[in-house]
Order: sequence, then structure tokens, then C-alpha cells
Amino acid sequence: MKSINISSIGEFGLIDMIKNQFANVKDNKNIVAGIGDDSFCFKSGKNNVCITKDMLIEDIHFKRNWATPQEIGRKSIEVNVSDIAAMGDVKPKYAFIGLGLPPKTSEIFIKSLYRGFKKTCDKYKMIIAGGNIVKADKIIISITIVGIGKKKVVKRMGAGVGDLIGVTNTFGNAGAGITLLYKYGIERKYNKYERFLISKQNNPKARLKEAWKISEYLTSLTDASDGLYVSVGLLTKDSGKGANVYIDRIPISSNLKRVFTEYKKQLDFALFGAEDYELIFTVPVSKAKLLKKLVPQISYIGKINSSKKVKYFYNDKEQKVEYSGYKHF
Amino acid sequence: MKSINISSIGEFGLIDMIKNQFANVKDNKNIVAGIGDDSFCFKSGKNNVCITKDMLIEDIHFKRNWATPQEIGRKSIEVNVSDIAAMGDVKPKYAFIGLGLPPKTSEIFIKSLYRGFKKTCDKYKMIIAGGNIVKADKIIISITIVGIGKKKVVKRMGAGVGDLIGVTNTFGNAGAGITLLYKYGIERKYNKYERFLISKQNNPKARLKEAWKISEYLTSLTDASDGLYVSVGLLTKDSGKGANVYIDRIPISSNLKRVFTEYKKQLDFALFGAEDYELIFTVPVSKAKLLKKLVPQISYIGKINSSKKVKYFYNDKEQKVEYSGYKHF
Repeated sequence: MKSINISSIGEFGLIDMIKNQFANVKDNKNIVAGIGDDSFCFKSGKNNVCITKDMLIEDIHFKRNWATPQEIGRKSIEVNVSDIAAMGDVKPKYAFIGLGLPPKTSEIFIKSLYRGFKKTCDKYKMIIAGGNIVKADKIIISITIVGIGKKKVVKRMGAGVGDLIGVTNTFGNAGAGITLLYKYGIERKYNKYERFLISKQNNPKARLKEAWKISEYLTSLTDASDGLYVSVGLLTKDSGKGANVYIDRIPISSNLKRVFTEYKKQLDFALFGAEDYELIFTVPVSKAKLLKKLVPQISYIGKINSSKKVKYFYNDKEQKVEYSGYKHF
Repeated sequence: MKSINISSIGEFGLIDMIKNQFANVKDNKNIVAGIGDDSFCFKSGKNNVCITKDMLIEDIHFKRNWATPQEIGRKSIEVNVSDIAAMGDVKPKYAFIGLGLPPKTSEIFIKSLYRGFKKTCDKYKMIIAGGNIVKADKIIISITIVGIGKKKVVKRMGAGVGDLIGVTNTFGNAGAGITLLYKYGIERKYNKYERFLISKQNNPKARLKEAWKISEYLTSLTDASDGLYVSVGLLTKDSGKGANVYIDRIPISSNLKRVFTEYKKQLDFALFGAEDYELIFTVPVSKAKLLKKLVPQISYIGKINSSKKVKYFYNDKEQKVEYSGYKHF
């Protein structure tokens, strides 16, 4: 066995390495959605029970002086709810909060963090059902959310040839926001356009209601936690399909355009900037208009084909696009 | 609001502080067991779905050179299965593994760690259903386990006056084992009695089958992750009762007696040493003999009364016992 660093194989290599060791979940008839989907779902009675789990670590996923403790708490819940939303018509019900805390953490910080958890759980009518607290060197937030769905869950696989690729809103804001924070920290007096971008980084909103409205019409669904480029790649790969993506149709906010005036930069954020937590889905052409009525913010950015490749077009001319986003290791 | 350090209020103070902010789970008719129990359980169809979550952090809960990566993986699963066992007749079904890994972690370490996860999940017929991997400064292992029960879950509250307090096996081994490691590290050539104690620290076994066998007769149940003294305190408190505990009836292994010959020291380990993961339960006197037939390792160490106090006796003489175990903060 080679003894190599994980930084050299990357997160997806690591997941592949581990995946192979696991039981084949297809063998279990109770499992509705497994590894590769945004949540794991199993049948219990007439319910689909969906479970998602994510971990945020201080100075890697958040910095104490870039966001308030309440924002950190809020975001920890929102990003997990986003994984529940990515399964379609599923209600998040129970949240479990595992916390690692340095012994010197102030009570005021912990209470504010919990206020963030609590308010966000209240917003989604979720109960904080449990968790644990352990000593750690840095703040660690490990959230597990349990959702219950009565209807069919929508998986990341399932896109059909000819389906349109839709997104629920603009892309690139969160990535632009974190770029500002890395560049200028919190000392700078930001203008309102910049503050918008930073708030999109610190205060993402799960597209849960949007998911509920449109899920019954979708053929596949995921959330864009690692950016549009990565998500479209995973969605087409898992569906065994390819796609043409029309870059000039990717919606970009006016704030992003004002702060980063160079179009190439805007597209970089839109394609590779992570943490927008918008939904990316596929839908048969016949339902595309209906969906835009249900959720007017929806844009269609491409079309599924049978090529097994994702091609990017600008003004109907193919563009070479290479991944330049964040590497987890 | 005061800004104090959490180390000064301790873990239980912290949990109390946070608990108050939560919704009252008694309001929700689907919730079968909530905060305070070893797992959170809710009704879904005819099933009780039980969820437990725990986090282990390098150099706080384990050290890389005190246990093999496979042992670390195995223990992470066992201690969570123990929380499922503490709910009675519940089958652990799905495991979720959140990992924080320093970028320089070797592939061989990760694979061995996963072999520990996988083998232990296989042993319990559990599927590794998901999880995530993030970058961290130290190794973080966050496990969530979902169990399914068809029968009534047994809670930590429910002990009745006159019930006997039973335990599934000896106490103190794991605490004695970690004490040896702290004192001598791994350099020492340990004898077989010492190796037994260290292996009880590194290779705990959840008492799952024992729980399945006896659960229908129990009035209350918990696992002794924080030691016998703490668990008896919580069980009686949650049941609104008190107890007499007969220290000389607490079973202590011959290995522990050989390595630590001083009786006072043995009792310290038995009462305050954590991580034995034995079950502690209460049962009506009429069923006590039957249980010992089902699980011969069972000992009865005390009796529930209505006093709301836990008193300790040695040779029928009351002893003053004060907590001297591990403080989490």
C-alpha cells in the first residue's frame, strides 16, 4: 500500500478511495438515496427519512472575525438544510449539533452561536434534538439534520436527454464575498455592493421552499455547494449524460457586476465560486415555463444530451473551461 | 450577559445553559426520547427511529500512538452503537462518518481507520451511509448512527421504587487502561494484565446483544460512558428517585485487581473511570433472576428508593463518595 498524502489525491480522490470499501447500498431495498446524493434517504413506513451531515471548522470554513457568532450558527444550519432541499419535497424536522469548543471560548460567543442555531431551526420549524459538546483546539460545528418526506425524493441522477438545466438564482456572489474578505479583511469600509456579496457568503439561504414548489416536475436535483461547474459535472456524470451549458445565460447579480467589472472574473465566480447554495436541476422542456411561474427567479442555462461530456458555450461558440475552484485538500 | 469561560462552568453547566434555549420536545407527539437520553428517538410509521451522534478529537479522545488507526475507527463506531444499545431493542442500521483530516495524513492511516469503521459496521450489519471529509488541524471523527426499533424504547427515566440497579459486567478497566497509558506511554513492556486494561480502553464493545435480550423487562437504561457514579446519578435524577448503591457489589475484574492492588484505587476506577460502556439499568425485583439467566455477567449493585439522593454503602456502612472523575472542560 502506498503511503501518500491526501493533499496529493484531493477530496474526490479520497471519497473514491473510501467509497470502494463500502457496502453496495443498491442491495438494500429500504435505501432510497445513498452516497453521492446530497442526503441519504431510507424508507420507514410511508416516510422517506433523509439525513445529511456536515462539519464546519474554524479558520477553514469560517473565521471568528469575519462573521458574527450568530451568522456562523445560522449558516451551519442553512447549508445542511440546503442538502435536505436538494432531495425535493422533504421537511427538515430534527437537528443535531455536535460542538467542539476550546475551553477558553466565552459564554457570550456560545450563546450567540446557539441563538443562530435556534433562530434558524425555528424558521424551518425544526427541533434541536440533541448533540454533544467536546473540548477541541478550534471551534468545530458538526450538524446532522433529519428530514421527512412523504413524496418521491429527487436524486442527483435522473437527467434525461433533452431536459433543460435550471438554476434557482444568481451565481458567484458568495465566492466574490469571500474573495473580498481574504483580500481586505474586516478593516475596509465596504460599499453596499460589496456588503451584499459578503452577506451572501455569511448568510446563505437554503432554497427549501423553492424545492418544495418544483420538485414533482424535476428529473434530477442537487445544490451548488461546490459551485456550478462542479455540480453540473456531478449531475451529468451520475445521470450518465452530457450537457451543453450556455455561459452567457448564467445569471449574475448586478452587485457582483458592479464590484468586479471584468466579465472574465464574473464568470470565474459564477462557475467556480462555491457556497451559493442555489439549486441546480433538470426538467423536461414541457414543464420549463410552469416552473418559472412557480419560482420566477429560475433561469435555464443549458440542455442535457447523450454525449457524456459537458461543453460550455459563449454566444453559441464553444469555450474551453477548466476547473479553477477551491480544492478541499 | 456575563462573559465567562466555559471551563469554569463545565460540560454539564454548558448543556444546561443550552438546553434552556431549546424547544420543549415533550410538545411533539412523534418524539419518543429526547435530550437527556442516550439517543434521540422519533416515531415513523411503526418504527422508532433512534439517532445518536458523537465526536472524537485527536489528542483529546484518542492519541495516534496509543491506539492503531483500526482501533480508533472501531472504537468510534462502538461508542455510538453503545448509545443505541442504551435505548433497548433497537437495531443500528446506518452510520454516517464525518472526518476532519490534516492534509498530511497518510493514505495508509486513512485506509486503516476506515477498515476499523467498516469491520465494526459489518459486525453490526450496519451500512456506512454517508458522511463528509473536511480539512482540519487534527483528526476529528464525527459519527452519527441511525437505529430502528420495533418495540418500546427504554429511557433513562423510569426507575421505580424498589427496583434493583443492574450492570452488565465489570467496571474500571478502561479508566485503569488510560491511566497506564498516561503514566507510561507506549514505551513500557506491559504485562498481560496491563495489556488487558489497555485493550479495554482501546477496544470497548457495545453491549448491544445484552440490551436486546433484557430490554423488555427494564424500567430504565443507560450506558456508563462517563462512569458508574455519573450514570447512576443521572438515571436516578431523571427518574425522580434516589438509590442505595453497595460499593462492594460493584464487579471489578481480576486484571484490574492485579495491576492496582490498592482497593481504594480499584474503587476509584470502578466509580469514576469512564468509557467502560457497560449498561446500567433498573429492573423490578421479580425479574432480576430471569435477567441473570439471560445475561450471566449481570450484577446487581443497588436499589432504587424515593429519597432523591444516591447513598453509597460499604459493608452496609454509608460512605461519603465525591466525584473525582474526568472533567470535560
